Amino acid sequence: MPEQRVRNEPVYLGIDGGGTKCRAVLMTAARQILGRGVSGPANPFHGLDQTIASIQNATNLAMADAGLGSDDLTDVVAGIGLAGVNLPGIYSVMAQYKHPFQHTFLTTDLEIACYGAHEGGDGAVIVCGTGSSGFSTVNGQSTVVGAHGFMFGDTCSGAWLGLEAIRAVLLAEDGLGPETQMTERVCRELGTNGVSIIERMNDAKPRDFARLAGLVFDAADCGDHVADSIVRTGASYLSALAGKLWEQNPPALSLLGGLRERMIPLLDDDIASRLTPAKNPPEIGAVLFAQHKFAELLAAA
Amino acid sequence: MPEQRVRNEPVYLGIDGGGTKCRAVLMTAARQILGRGVSGPANPFHGLDQTIASIQNATNLAMADAGLGSDDLTDVVAGIGLAGVNLPGIYSVMAQYKHPFQHTFLTTDLEIACYGAHEGGDGAVIVCGTGSSGFSTVNGQSTVVGAHGFMFGDTCSGAWLGLEAIRAVLLAEDGLGPETQMTERVCRELGTNGVSIIERMNDAKPRDFARLAGLVFDAADCGDHVADSIVRTGASYLSALAGKLWEQNPPALSLLGGLRERMIPLLDDDIASRLTPAKNPPEIGAVLFAQHKFAELLAAA
Repeated sequence: MPEQRVRNEPVYLGIDGGGTKCRAVLMTAARQILGRGVSGPANPFHGLDQTIASIQNATNLAMADAGLGSDDLTDVVAGIGLAGVNLPGIYSVMAQYKHPFQHTFLTTDLEIACYGAHEGGDGAVIVCGTGSSGFSTVNGQSTVVGAHGFMFGDTCSGAWLGLEAIRAVLLAEDGLGPETQMTERVCRELGTNGVSIIERMNDAKPRDFARLAGLVFDAADCGDHVADSIVRTGASYLSALAGKLWEQNPPALSLLGGLRERMIPLLDDDIASRLTPAKNPPEIGAVLFAQHKFAELLAAA
Repeated sequence: MPEQRVRNEPVYLGIDGGGTKCRAVLMTAARQILGRGVSGPANPFHGLDQTIASIQNATNLAMADAGLGSDDLTDVVAGIGLAGVNLPGIYSVMAQYKHPFQHTFLTTDLEIACYGAHEGGDGAVIVCGTGSSGFSTVNGQSTVVGAHGFMFGDTCSGAWLGLEAIRAVLLAEDGLGPETQMTERVCRELGTNGVSIIERMNDAKPRDFARLAGLVFDAADCGDHVADSIVRTGASYLSALAGKLWEQNPPALSLLGGLRERMIPLLDDDIASRLTPAKNPPEIGAVLFAQHKFAELLAAA
């Protein structure tokens, strides 16, 4: 079986942690997949303990899937890409995580997405899922655009779409905004209506708002002008973000994330036509990142 | 001295609790002011324990100012108006508050503002402070417009202005929005810059954002187009909100709250010219509300 690892060689773990899910993949040095795992949210900006628990859960699932036990953790070289660690304070807190692995290399979800999309070479990515952001790496120079988080930006993200839907519904309820099909859809989805929506979503996380993103696209598809205006505002932002990344002259730009398929038809034609599919998903990018960093470490030793 | 209370008559306490401050006033049955007190935030949507502590602190200060002690609390009939209690869940939690008074009558900050502005008669108010909202009472029929809170609405509130400023600064930093004078002003006010603003404001409350409202007006006054666009968007919303309240045919409409003076020149002329000054501040409105409800209670007994 090619999926067997060679003795004395490390096993590589790739972790992609976002606002809704944490994906783990275990691979051999020759990049054969040994196992996979998926767990819950892993954005340390919205909960550090939960992030660490999600990393551990996804890892344990991938280890079990690979037929490995906890004794094997010391053979693991991990690449961990997380939303939120573009913020210096969040990075330094996460860097103190007492990991059980032989080595751990921590970076942003954006960098591992870019590693995966372009096989570790130069390129750019836009990630449009629970959050939204852009990243490029060209001639050793990295650029981050957006990645400000739900409250301060993340335009066109799933969380942003859901929040805009709720705002539009409340405005319509007051007679200060146009009627919208989203009212019925949001109330059905949340099982409540009127100002009770506010209480229902008081402690809601970005992933809870992101669950409403689909109904915004659905309402827009059914001709709802308010929903259409929201998705077009989002698409304009993504197109502008892509334009900003192209200024760095990356050889390629990939759009990733859960909203990819629904957003592509809405982007400016010249932006959409230049997108290229990612070669690998972000969790495999995290493995490539770990292999690259581990090789650097060995070379320096 | 006219400020002495008549024995065996209750003392009336008026409480106006908002996102930044809690004001208390003690008055005789004949509406002579006995004492005043001001404490911290009292919006139960953003912290129940803090709200109760702020009510107690403001009350204690007003009692001391009036030369009254804790033994006198059982003579007090309180009217308490709080932001957030327009939400049914928040109202029912606050209604369980174990108050030390003879009687307590709880309602929204909007209703006491309207009671104060129009001496308990029909009328309408817009409160534009840390939050924003509108209220009218006409022929026994009450109408609330807005009051959705910081995250879901509150357009033109101090918190909204501050958040819009931060969003504009981060967008400009990415080169995805126009340069703005607010960048320097926000960074100076917060003592940080760039993405560190996000970490600095991660756990910020509406009142923390509202502290930035003044610099948005200042930048607009200095010709900054981005700031000008924000305050004009806010003013359009307030004008629309006023128009909505006029549909109820109130005999008068008053604009209250910390942003009153800065917003009036920005409102539509036909809206601004019809505003009338409030006859009393909201905390005195809370006393009028308590007197009205207490008289109803005695009449029913």
